[in-house]
Amino acid sequence: MDKNRICELFKIKYPIVQAGMVWVSGQKLATAVSLAGGLGVIGAGSMHPETLQLHIQKLKQKTNLPFAVNIPLLYPEIDKIIEIVITENVPIVITSAGNPNIYTSKLKAHDIKVVHVVSSVKFAIKAANAGVDAIVAEGFEAGGHNGRDETTTLVLTPMVVSAVNIPVIAAGGIASGNAMAACFALGAEGVQVGTRFALSKESSAHISYINACINAGEGDTILTLKNTTPVRMLKNELYNQISILDQNNADKEAYLQLMGKGRAKKGIFEGDLKEGELEIGQVTAAINQVKTAKEIIDEMTVEFKKTVSYIHTINF
Amino acid sequence: MDKNRICELFKIKYPIVQAGMVWVSGQKLATAVSLAGGLGVIGAGSMHPETLQLHIQKLKQKTNLPFAVNIPLLYPEIDKIIEIVITENVPIVITSAGNPNIYTSKLKAHDIKVVHVVSSVKFAIKAANAGVDAIVAEGFEAGGHNGRDETTTLVLTPMVVSAVNIPVIAAGGIASGNAMAACFALGAEGVQVGTRFALSKESSAHISYINACINAGEGDTILTLKNTTPVRMLKNELYNQISILDQNNADKEAYLQLMGKGRAKKGIFEGDLKEGELEIGQVTAAINQVKTAKEIIDEMTVEFKKTVSYIHTINF
Repeated sequence: MDKNRICELFKIKYPIVQAGMVWVSGQKLATAVSLAGGLGVIGAGSMHPETLQLHIQKLKQKTNLPFAVNIPLLYPEIDKIIEIVITENVPIVITSAGNPNIYTSKLKAHDIKVVHVVSSVKFAIKAANAGVDAIVAEGFEAGGHNGRDETTTLVLTPMVVSAVNIPVIAAGGIASGNAMAACFALGAEGVQVGTRFALSKESSAHISYINACINAGEGDTILTLKNTTPVRMLKNELYNQISILDQNNADKEAYLQLMGKGRAKKGIFEGDLKEGELEIGQVTAAINQVKTAKEIIDEMTVEFKKTVSYIHTINF
Repeated sequence: MDKNRICELFKIKYPIVQAGMVWVSGQKLATAVSLAGGLGVIGAGSMHPETLQLHIQKLKQKTNLPFAVNIPLLYPEIDKIIEIVITENVPIVITSAGNPNIYTSKLKAHDIKVVHVVSSVKFAIKAANAGVDAIVAEGFEAGGHNGRDETTTLVLTPMVVSAVNIPVIAAGGIASGNAMAACFALGAEGVQVGTRFALSKESSAHISYINACINAGEGDTILTLKNTTPVRMLKNELYNQISILDQNNADKEAYLQLMGKGRAKKGIFEGDLKEGELEIGQVTAAINQVKTAKEIIDEMTVEFKKTVSYIHTINF
């Protein structure tokens, strides 16, 4: 068996990519994940360009291991962000929420590996044609921004794997070694893990947000804001207000006005459980404990190996 | 490794259960699946009691192999149906959509194995406490009637496996051997397959419905009717009419009036693609060919074995 293509591409020990998450994944979490053998990712989405640069520099002071920056391509100061990742010699960039044709060749010309996040086969093919090195295929169960087709990780992953030749990283609903093994059975060569790391010791999220997620059960998250940009979040007072707009067939403007600016910061970083946007994945229902990034990666990889040994012996 | 508990329980060769599907799974499909080594299931949901009895008798004329009857517990003539499965010595009953406490002990007193379909951990525990022999845990991606929590198969399966001691059959989004292997990695000991068999040569569905499903792509099914009983179906003219009720915040009565009686029959059995209720799972997007039940089971089991061998050799 050849070496795993994701480990080769990123020069990492385990094919576990930490998701870039607003107000959650600064240099602290990214450093811990990279030190534990995964791919740590600084999420640029909630940072001013100068803040991002500071986070990159701090991470580089602590480790020489590979890491990535996640960049939502619709970011207002996108050109500054692109310049920073080039200047700072960031080895890997994960782009999302935008057109992969615009920046992929520029980044690759600077020897940066480029990964694009998609929620459909259609966009996976578009990203592959734009020349990205790998795809993150993210299912309906994932937290935060999500696709319109509502295709789940179980259904999406094998369809994307069949459609492209580059390696596919499955995302959405993966918080354990057995889910990781399941995704490898579907043809993925890596996994992107968000929710599990959002609820880690090194997460930048507010303790009230973390506790609310730890205590959440089945049905407590929902994919909402389908009339603007779909987001999965915990149901709370803000969600109730969104539901009222839904019931009133409100126009886009009303949603933009309700959401305003800083709702995610308020919820995730400041711990306002009522008025904040509590982005988190569905698998939060299965998570009952805060752990360190290292514990998470160690447990996932051990469980992965146990699981693949177990299913290899199934007898029927 | 012990023998697979689902194969032991049902006395079948492969732990593949065909889903009971209205207007799709009569004795023809059930017989073909049982003959191919899976568990064939006659769906009582769309049958008058005497029709069901006829289907059971026809199946028994063709094979002595185990089979099951799927009974939605909210069925109007439920007591007649229960008497028929007892009289006809049906070996296995799969119940859904209702309270497992009412009929489980009666069925078990007649030496019938009882399986209950759930979409949440809460109902899985309730069913286990009612004494059922196994659980079908059905995720958000499944076709037809569905749960309110929108938990996907990837997230639901391991939570149900952790919560009960009886074997768990994963359902929703499973149409291939690699998805089957994925579900076994999650702790399932069997899979229930609906959509793939709905689009088989032995399906009772109308050819127009089958072709519409075969041609459907990503995002072409949707979980709708959330205000009454959630159902996943192909988007069509009927779905557009449902959406208008949603937009108008219509009351339950308006939905019941729109859906009326016979919408599923019209769509699935009579092939009315505009006005019929075209129940089908999300994984229809990945299915491009009508096959026989035997081809489906043979391919799934061969692919399952290939997949578990492959992931056993993964090297990182």
